[in-house]
Amino acid sequence: RIDADRLWDSLMEMAKIGPGIAGGNNRQTLTDEDAEGRALFQTWCEAAGMTMGVDTMGNMFATRPGEDPDALPVYMGSHLDTQPTGGKYDGVLGVLGGLEAVRTMNDLNVKTKHPIVVANWTNEEGTRFAPAMLASGVFAGKHTQDWAYDREDAEGKKFGDELKRIGWVGDEEVGARKMHAMFELHIEQGPILEAEGKDIGVVTHGQGLNWLEVTIIGKESHTGSTPMPMRINAGRGLALITELVHEIAMKHQPNAVGAIGHVDVYPNSRNIIPGKVVCTVDFRSHLQEVIDAMIAEFDERAPKLCADIGVEMSWEMVGTFDPPAFDEGCVKAVRDAAQELGYSHMDIVSGAGHDACWINEIYPTAMIMCPCVDGLSHNEAEDISKEWAAAGTDVLMHAVLETAEI
Amino acid sequence: RIDADRLWDSLMEMAKIGPGIAGGNNRQTLTDEDAEGRALFQTWCEAAGMTMGVDTMGNMFATRPGEDPDALPVYMGSHLDTQPTGGKYDGVLGVLGGLEAVRTMNDLNVKTKHPIVVANWTNEEGTRFAPAMLASGVFAGKHTQDWAYDREDAEGKKFGDELKRIGWVGDEEVGARKMHAMFELHIEQGPILEAEGKDIGVVTHGQGLNWLEVTIIGKESHTGSTPMPMRINAGRGLALITELVHEIAMKHQPNAVGAIGHVDVYPNSRNIIPGKVVCTVDFRSHLQEVIDAMIAEFDERAPKLCADIGVEMSWEMVGTFDPPAFDEGCVKAVRDAAQELGYSHMDIVSGAGHDACWINEIYPTAMIMCPCVDGLSHNEAEDISKEWAAAGTDVLMHAVLETAEI
Ligand SMILES: NC(=O)NCCC(=O)O
Ligand SMILES: NC(=O)NCCC(=O)O
Repeated sequence: RIDADRLWDSLMEMAKIGPGIAGGNNRQTLTDEDAEGRALFQTWCEAAGMTMGVDTMGNMFATRPGEDPDALPVYMGSHLDTQPTGGKYDGVLGVLGGLEAVRTMNDLNVKTKHPIVVANWTNEEGTRFAPAMLASGVFAGKHTQDWAYDREDAEGKKFGDELKRIGWVGDEEVGARKMHAMFELHIEQGPILEAEGKDIGVVTHGQGLNWLEVTIIGKESHTGSTPMPMRINAGRGLALITELVHEIAMKHQPNAVGAIGHVDVYPNSRNIIPGKVVCTVDFRSHLQEVIDAMIAEFDERAPKLCADIGVEMSWEMVGTFDPPAFDEGCVKAVRDAAQELGYSHMDIVSGAGHDACWINEIYPTAMIMCPCVDGLSHNEAEDISKEWAAAGTDVLMHAVLETAEI
Repeated sequence: RIDADRLWDSLMEMAKIGPGIAGGNNRQTLTDEDAEGRALFQTWCEAAGMTMGVDTMGNMFATRPGEDPDALPVYMGSHLDTQPTGGKYDGVLGVLGGLEAVRTMNDLNVKTKHPIVVANWTNEEGTRFAPAMLASGVFAGKHTQDWAYDREDAEGKKFGDELKRIGWVGDEEVGARKMHAMFELHIEQGPILEAEGKDIGVVTHGQGLNWLEVTIIGKESHTGSTPMPMRINAGRGLALITELVHEIAMKHQPNAVGAIGHVDVYPNSRNIIPGKVVCTVDFRSHLQEVIDAMIAEFDERAPKLCADIGVEMSWEMVGTFDPPAFDEGCVKAVRDAAQELGYSHMDIVSGAGHDACWINEIYPTAMIMCPCVDGLSHNEAEDISKEWAAAGTDVLMHAVLETAEI
C-alpha cells in the first residue's frame, strides 16, 4: 500500500505554487507558476532516483529503470497545469500519485521487468491554448508540433514562444518514446462515484468532444442613438446560440452535454451595441453518432436563428476527439487491482477528456478514477478526501506492477 | 463663416493621436493618448490667444476675454476622449468646432461683451470608467469628486490615480466657474438628419438613461463531466436577460431603446460552465415614465427568469440621468442662427447623453447637431462630411456670438 500522508503532503506542497483566489489553483500552462511546479516535480523525481527526460513539447518523463533492458516502459501520469480557477487535484493527483507509487516501490525495494515512467503532459487543460490535451495529442500524432507551436493565447502569445520563455523545451523528439502501456489516475470530475458510494471508477470509455469556435458578426453602433429597427446586435446572436446549445444537449441527455464556457464580446463597451462576439461551444457524448447529430443540428439551426435577427454567424472546429474505448487488458488490470485490494468499484465513462484518451490511440491505455466532492471540478472548491486519493493511487500502483511484471 | 478647411485639418491632426485599428480612434480617457490630445488642444488654444484653466477633474477651459469684466462667459465644448473603437468626430467636433469659432472671431477681430470659453470635459464616454459624462456630472454637482476619483476601470485602476498619472489634475475647484450659457455641437450619432436631408438638428430634448450593472451567479463546473441536470449556467442567465432587455425596449419603441453592450464572463474558459457573468444594461427614453416602466418590468421579470434556471441575479444602478429639456432661449439662439445662415434644420431629440445634459441642470444650455453617415457612431467607421462639420460650426459660432453679445 502507498503512503497516504506522504502523497497528501506532496499534493499540498504543489498546491502552494500558483495559488488561486478561493483556495484552489491558478497554475496555467506555460506560466512562471507552471515552470515552478515542473521544477519541484523534477526535484522530487530525482530524489526518488529517477532520471528526467523532456521532449520538444515540454512533456516530462521520469524513468525508474527496469530489469530487462529491452522491455518497453509502463507509463503513469497526467498533468500539472490547471484551469485559471482550478482545483488542487485535477491532473495533479495523477502525476503525484505516479510519483508516490514509485516512492513506495523504492521503499519496498520492488523490482519490475519493465521500466516505469511518471509523465507530466503539457497543456492538458486547453484554456490558455486550445485545444485541450495539446501535447499528448502531438505525441500521439494527432497534431503536428509546428501547428501546436502556433497556437495563441488570448493575448496573442504563441505556445512555442511561451514554452521557450519558461525554459522547458526539451531535446527529445516528441512521440519518439515507445510505451508498453499507460495508466492515468484522475479525479472523476463528476458526481457518480460519490453518489454510488464507490472508491474506484474503472474507466472503460470516455466522451468524445467537439469544440466549435463561433464568430457572430453584428454592427457596432451607439446604444442610445441607434433606433431599435436599425440594430444588428451580435449579443443577441450569442443569446440565441447559448440557449440553442442547451436545448440540443438536453435532447440527447443523459448521453450528451453541451455549453458555452468562453465568450468575448467586442468592443465590450457599455454604450456600444456589440459588433462581434466570439465564443466556444463544447458538445460531448460517449456516442459518436450523438456528437454528429448535435453538430448537424447546430449547423442547421444556429445560422438561421442568427440570420433572423440580421446577424451573421460562422463556426470552425478548434478541438475534437472521438469517444475512446480503453484497452481491455489494461482495464482488466485496473479492475483486478481494485478487487484484490478490496476497494468498492464500478465501471464508468469519463465525462472529461484526458491525455490517456490520445495515448490510447497508439498504446494500450486505461484510467482509474476516484470520487470528488459534489462532482465539482474546474472550480477552486474542487475537493477529495485523503482516503480517496490513497485508494486511487493504490490501484494505480498495483495495476502498473501487474503490467510491468514484478 | 468659419474656415471649413482649417477646421477639417485640425480634426485630422487630432485623429492622428490614438489611432484605432480600422480608421477611427482609440483615445480613451486618462490614457497617454488622452494626455497627448489634451496637450495639442492646449497648444492650439494658446496660439489662438486663449488662456487655459484646468480643474481638479481635469476639465479644460480655454478663455477668450470679453469686453465687460463682470459678464459671465459663454461656453462651447464637448470632449476629446473616445470609445475604444470610436470615430474621429464624436466629441472632438464640439471641442475643435469651438476652437475654430474662436479662430474665426480672431480673424474677423470680433469683440464680445461676455468672455468665451472652449471646454474639453473629462471622461464623457464612460467606457473606461462608468458612468459617462463623469466630470461634467461632478461639475454640475451630480456626483462628488471623491466618488468620481474612486471609479475603477476593468483593471482596477482608479480614475483619480490615472488623472494624476497623466498629469492633468488642475488647480481650479471643480464647479467653481459660473456660466452665462453653454452650447455643445455634436454629431447626431443617429440616422434622422441624414434621412431627412437636414444640415442642422436643433436639439430640444435628450433621452434619459439608466445603466444597470447586472450580476448573474451560477456555479463553475466542468463542461464535460457535469451532468446536464446539475448545471447552474450563468451564461444562460445572460442569454435570457439579453433577450428580455430587447423585448422590453421593443415594447416602447420608438420611444425607447435598450441593449447590453458590456459583458464579462467568469472564469471564461472553454471547458468551464460560467459561474458568473457581469453585464450592463443600457435603457433609454426621452420620457421619464417610459424609463421607469422599463426598469420596473426588468426588475420584475429578470430575477424570475434567472431563478427558473437556478441562477441568481441582482442589479445596481451605475449610471442614470433624467431626460433633459434644453433652455428655450439657447435653443432659440441655435434655431435662429441656422435660419439666418440659410441652413436647413429641424428640431431633434438627442439619443445619446452629452456633457450638455448635465450642464443644462445648472446653466442655460443647448445643443447643435450635424448629420453623420448612416447614423453610425461608436464605430471606427463613423463619418461626416466637411460641409456638415462646417455648417454645424457656423451655427455654433453664431448662436454663441448672439448670446455673448457682439
Ligand atoms: N480533465 C480535464 O478537465 N481535462 C480538460 C479537457 C476537457 O475539457 O475535458
Ligand atoms: N455622445 C455620446 O456618445 N456619449 C456617451 C454617453 C452615452 O452613452 O450616451
